[in-house]
Amino acid sequence: MSSTFSFKRLAQSGLARRGEIVTPRGIIRTPAFMPVGTVATVKALYPEQVKQAGADILLGNTYHLMLRPGAERVARLGGLHKFMRWDGPILTDSGGFQVMSLSKIRKITEEGAQFQSHLDGSRHMLSPERSIEIQCLLGSDIQMQFDECIELPAERREVERAMELSLRWAERSKRAFEAQVASGGATRGQALFGIVQGGVDVELRRRSAEALVAMDMPGYAVGGLAVGEGHEAMVATLAATLPFLPQDKPRYLMGVGTPLDLIESVRLGVDMFDCVMPTRNGRHGYAFTWGGVLNMKNAKHAEDLAPIDEESSCPAAREYSRAYVHHLIRSGEFLGAMILSWINTTFYQDLMAAMRKAIEENRFDAWAEETKVRILARKEAA
Amino acid sequence: MSSTFSFKRLAQSGLARRGEIVTPRGIIRTPAFMPVGTVATVKALYPEQVKQAGADILLGNTYHLMLRPGAERVARLGGLHKFMRWDGPILTDSGGFQVMSLSKIRKITEEGAQFQSHLDGSRHMLSPERSIEIQCLLGSDIQMQFDECIELPAERREVERAMELSLRWAERSKRAFEAQVASGGATRGQALFGIVQGGVDVELRRRSAEALVAMDMPGYAVGGLAVGEGHEAMVATLAATLPFLPQDKPRYLMGVGTPLDLIESVRLGVDMFDCVMPTRNGRHGYAFTWGGVLNMKNAKHAEDLAPIDEESSCPAAREYSRAYVHHLIRSGEFLGAMILSWINTTFYQDLMAAMRKAIEENRFDAWAEETKVRILARKEAA
Repeated sequence: MSSTFSFKRLAQSGLARRGEIVTPRGIIRTPAFMPVGTVATVKALYPEQVKQAGADILLGNTYHLMLRPGAERVARLGGLHKFMRWDGPILTDSGGFQVMSLSKIRKITEEGAQFQSHLDGSRHMLSPERSIEIQCLLGSDIQMQFDECIELPAERREVERAMELSLRWAERSKRAFEAQVASGGATRGQALFGIVQGGVDVELRRRSAEALVAMDMPGYAVGGLAVGEGHEAMVATLAATLPFLPQDKPRYLMGVGTPLDLIESVRLGVDMFDCVMPTRNGRHGYAFTWGGVLNMKNAKHAEDLAPIDEESSCPAAREYSRAYVHHLIRSGEFLGAMILSWINTTFYQDLMAAMRKAIEENRFDAWAEETKVRILARKEAA
Repeated sequence: MSSTFSFKRLAQSGLARRGEIVTPRGIIRTPAFMPVGTVATVKALYPEQVKQAGADILLGNTYHLMLRPGAERVARLGGLHKFMRWDGPILTDSGGFQVMSLSKIRKITEEGAQFQSHLDGSRHMLSPERSIEIQCLLGSDIQMQFDECIELPAERREVERAMELSLRWAERSKRAFEAQVASGGATRGQALFGIVQGGVDVELRRRSAEALVAMDMPGYAVGGLAVGEGHEAMVATLAATLPFLPQDKPRYLMGVGTPLDLIESVRLGVDMFDCVMPTRNGRHGYAFTWGGVLNMKNAKHAEDLAPIDEESSCPAAREYSRAYVHHLIRSGEFLGAMILSWINTTFYQDLMAAMRKAIEENRFDAWAEETKVRILARKEAA
């Protein structure tokens, strides 16, 4: 095992990159999709299933974990990996996004964000320094700078203000992380990523990216997308932003997305993703398959003995009938959510594996066109 | 595989019996505990986990399955076993108990029970003939006569009336089952059990048992207990009832119960049980262990790195920390219910296996006293 953090590119197909992030806890094959384990569990899945699905790395949410069970408690229990029985790499976000999207009352100052918990109304503060401290207490392998996420659409002035504040917070996050390394709270095997902000404004994105690159961070995320701007605007912003990021560092598109989003983003050169979609949509009765999206609540499935997806590498996709899963979802049974979360988590991993293979074979564009026809062929209405 | 249904006693320890029920779908080792798969799923468990826990047979609920997905639909889909991916034996109840406990409005006549669904208010009828027809459509291996269950306490006259009606319904259930066998709707490998009723009145229980025994059924259940009369009254009624049942037929105590209930009932000669307690209590945060019952919501577990139960044969009981399960249950996460339902279902099967071994070794009473000290040592309050 490596004792440091590194990234290497193994193959390229157009702008799409096949690589490896090497960490002391294992290798992350990129392009990679990180299942979301918000409160230290990928919802409705055993950790063995997540591993078996092919995931190399999970995401944990700083905001949720600081509120419950608490970062100091997780540290006393030996860290997040041991707590949730996941021995591979874990990335934690900084909490910035959830302060915006979940907390009740918040006040953003130069110092940081004051907010009230969505769970019990208790008062908390997140700053770059505290966010990094929490992420070190959790022991995550990839940490994210603290940033301010704003809702779109927003005035350019407001987007610019938040982007510039996030840059100052990036500097403070980096200093806090270096101090953790110096004091033994983190190691050189862990990494801190910067986050490019700037809404859908290309000039702001460029300034954000250039300032972060000047800080020479080990990886860069594109944040503040997939917040309602739509697929086309997301892809356009991404296409305009990525050229300002270095080729030799991993690029992480935060909170994205649909299978189509993933394909188009990998085509542009993104290496990492996370999204709750596979598990959340699974709980709501949707199955991602190589033939499109099935709404298992739909009455058409009630007497269909076919499996969910013959092509899936997930046993549940091949073994349970559509009729049975329809019944489970209609009945609100745990097993329905368990089966569909498993199937969808596996589909996302299978999709990433197929993309990695297509890049290795230098036929990503051809693969993408074939695959889009298949997976967009069917989208069953709610 | 046998093509008929049979029961043999292999060993005895006092009144406690170790036996085997042989069915075309497999052997049921008795004393046996049947996990409850109400709506064609043992809640929060994959069928493989139920099998791995050691269960030889499951229970399905006629009332629930007739309402959703419907018995005719299950039959069109190939029967309940195929539908829920359980190839071992299945016992179905008759629906009588749930008509009493769940349906909105009901009217009991000599013909049967008219009621409204608790799901959507739709009107349905259950009679001995329809109950048997449904159970044959589901394809269950052990079927139960249709009976009237009344709530206790009740006037003796009312208990007697319901008991006598249940005897007439037993006759009709038996004729209906024989007609199904004659017409190919059932086989000689399937069995119909009678149900002894009579509340906590020993004289009524005797009359019920004797009348059913005169019908020469392949097995007998004791119904109408564990409905609020308490452990002592249940054991006393059981002790007074079982002597009226033949030694060479399996005896099934319906809807029971706690680990203590199971031990005391096996001691009296009961062979089969079912209860929602392992899964329901698991969803509510309770863990059954060889050291007693743990309430995982309890703050004392918040930083306890010990596993739930080192002695369990369930991997989850040995691998997840109490601190983690506490966190999952407090957070309302699926995985908490999944882990505890799995642990509890395994505990019940481990308990039955230990009882079977103690009977084989002709030391049931000694085993029971040792075990009761252990499992009753701890019961954490809600």
